Amino acid sequence: MKRIKLVVAYDGTNYCGWQIQPNEITVEKVLNDKLTKLLGKEIKIIGASRTDSGVHALGNVAVFDTESTIPGDKFSYALNTLLPEDITIQESCEVELDFHPRHCETRKMYEYKILNRKFPLPTKRLDTYFFSHSLDIDKMMETAKYLVGEHDFKSFCSAKTQTETTVRTIYSVDVTRSDDVVSIKVAGNGFLYNMVRIIAGTLIQVGTGYYEPIKVKTMLESNDRTLAGPTAPPEGLTLVEIQFL
Amino acid sequence: MKRIKLVVAYDGTNYCGWQIQPNEITVEKVLNDKLTKLLGKEIKIIGASRTDSGVHALGNVAVFDTESTIPGDKFSYALNTLLPEDITIQESCEVELDFHPRHCETRKMYEYKILNRKFPLPTKRLDTYFFSHSLDIDKMMETAKYLVGEHDFKSFCSAKTQTETTVRTIYSVDVTRSDDVVSIKVAGNGFLYNMVRIIAGTLIQVGTGYYEPIKVKTMLESNDRTLAGPTAPPEGLTLVEIQFL
Repeated sequence: MKRIKLVVAYDGTNYCGWQIQPNEITVEKVLNDKLTKLLGKEIKIIGASRTDSGVHALGNVAVFDTESTIPGDKFSYALNTLLPEDITIQESCEVELDFHPRHCETRKMYEYKILNRKFPLPTKRLDTYFFSHSLDIDKMMETAKYLVGEHDFKSFCSAKTQTETTVRTIYSVDVTRSDDVVSIKVAGNGFLYNMVRIIAGTLIQVGTGYYEPIKVKTMLESNDRTLAGPTAPPEGLTLVEIQFL
Repeated sequence: MKRIKLVVAYDGTNYCGWQIQPNEITVEKVLNDKLTKLLGKEIKIIGASRTDSGVHALGNVAVFDTESTIPGDKFSYALNTLLPEDITIQESCEVELDFHPRHCETRKMYEYKILNRKFPLPTKRLDTYFFSHSLDIDKMMETAKYLVGEHDFKSFCSAKTQTETTVRTIYSVDVTRSDDVVSIKVAGNGFLYNMVRIIAGTLIQVGTGYYEPIKVKTMLESNDRTLAGPTAPPEGLTLVEIQFL
């Protein structure tokens, strides 16, 4: 028996997120089906991050156990021949049998991309959120300092969140503009349900001038979801990387 | 009567190119249909570039005549509410009645994008050609000098080309790498059928080491299509801009 780790990239546009749900097509379901087909035995993967419906990934991580003789690094090639064009394996390797992608200390990096121009661009529609009003990047960047560090992010997660604690650590928030794409990169030790999208939605409102940056400090301290900005749409969000510490 | 100019962006993935053809969905057909719907009168646009099946545009140009009272700059907004998500109008304005997008001196800029990494990335699949072998950008750039200038490009166009002359002027060829995307930008006064894709296919073969850069000089002088490289796939090609001189 060996445990194989997969690094998975996907365009989430046509999936109801990562996690298996009855009667829905999800990334986890497709991976289970293709691995089961490849190995001739039912396989159930364990994923690191349950991304939402419509959210993308460059580097989500999953593991599964198998007695197959296929070398760990060859699963990427074998699976990519079976997968649809909107899911690809970027890397595969054998890991220790006790490696569990959800029971590790991690550093996760998300990117939220805003296509900020007068009209949408068809070739960029998959992984950007189109927003035509002008954005003040300096003010968005100034807001970052209130978010970085260990905080209770209760105001910045869905009211549906069920976790023991809503305290998380954000290592960095970077807002940059390259041509017509504004990128918000957020790195942290873990994220609550909708947390990055609420951070993005709030930063967008700061960028338009609707809130002053200092207001975000008050939002955070309030522990009240209704005071933070709206949840930005899923299409702008990509899970870039998960580092296991 | 007035003449309206449209700057049109599209993801060509799901279209049989620009030009109207029986029983096929083309960009020209969709624009005619939506304009006819908007104005309540049959409209037939005239396009500047008949891009191939699967090729994209950021700035193709089309004109049409109308007696509508809608101001020229408002057609972009009106049409964008009717168009599918893979076609958008970037700009609209009124032009002189004798402006014809195919009877003008122009400077056209195309970009061919190669996704050059080990495995494909789903979110970049719309407008890049995936190619996993390593590419020597310096050699590709060195080849550019043989292509720039006025030449007979008979070796670099489809054998199906029907034109009075195969002489064209290329103003610049730039090959750059940004992360995992290799970009070939070609500007010229006009391009023959498949010309940019054959230039891209030839440069890719130079990049892999299959041809030395100097070989491209011989190809060009031979006036023989069979000596140049293959036609690179359409998905990597985008018509970036047309300037009317």
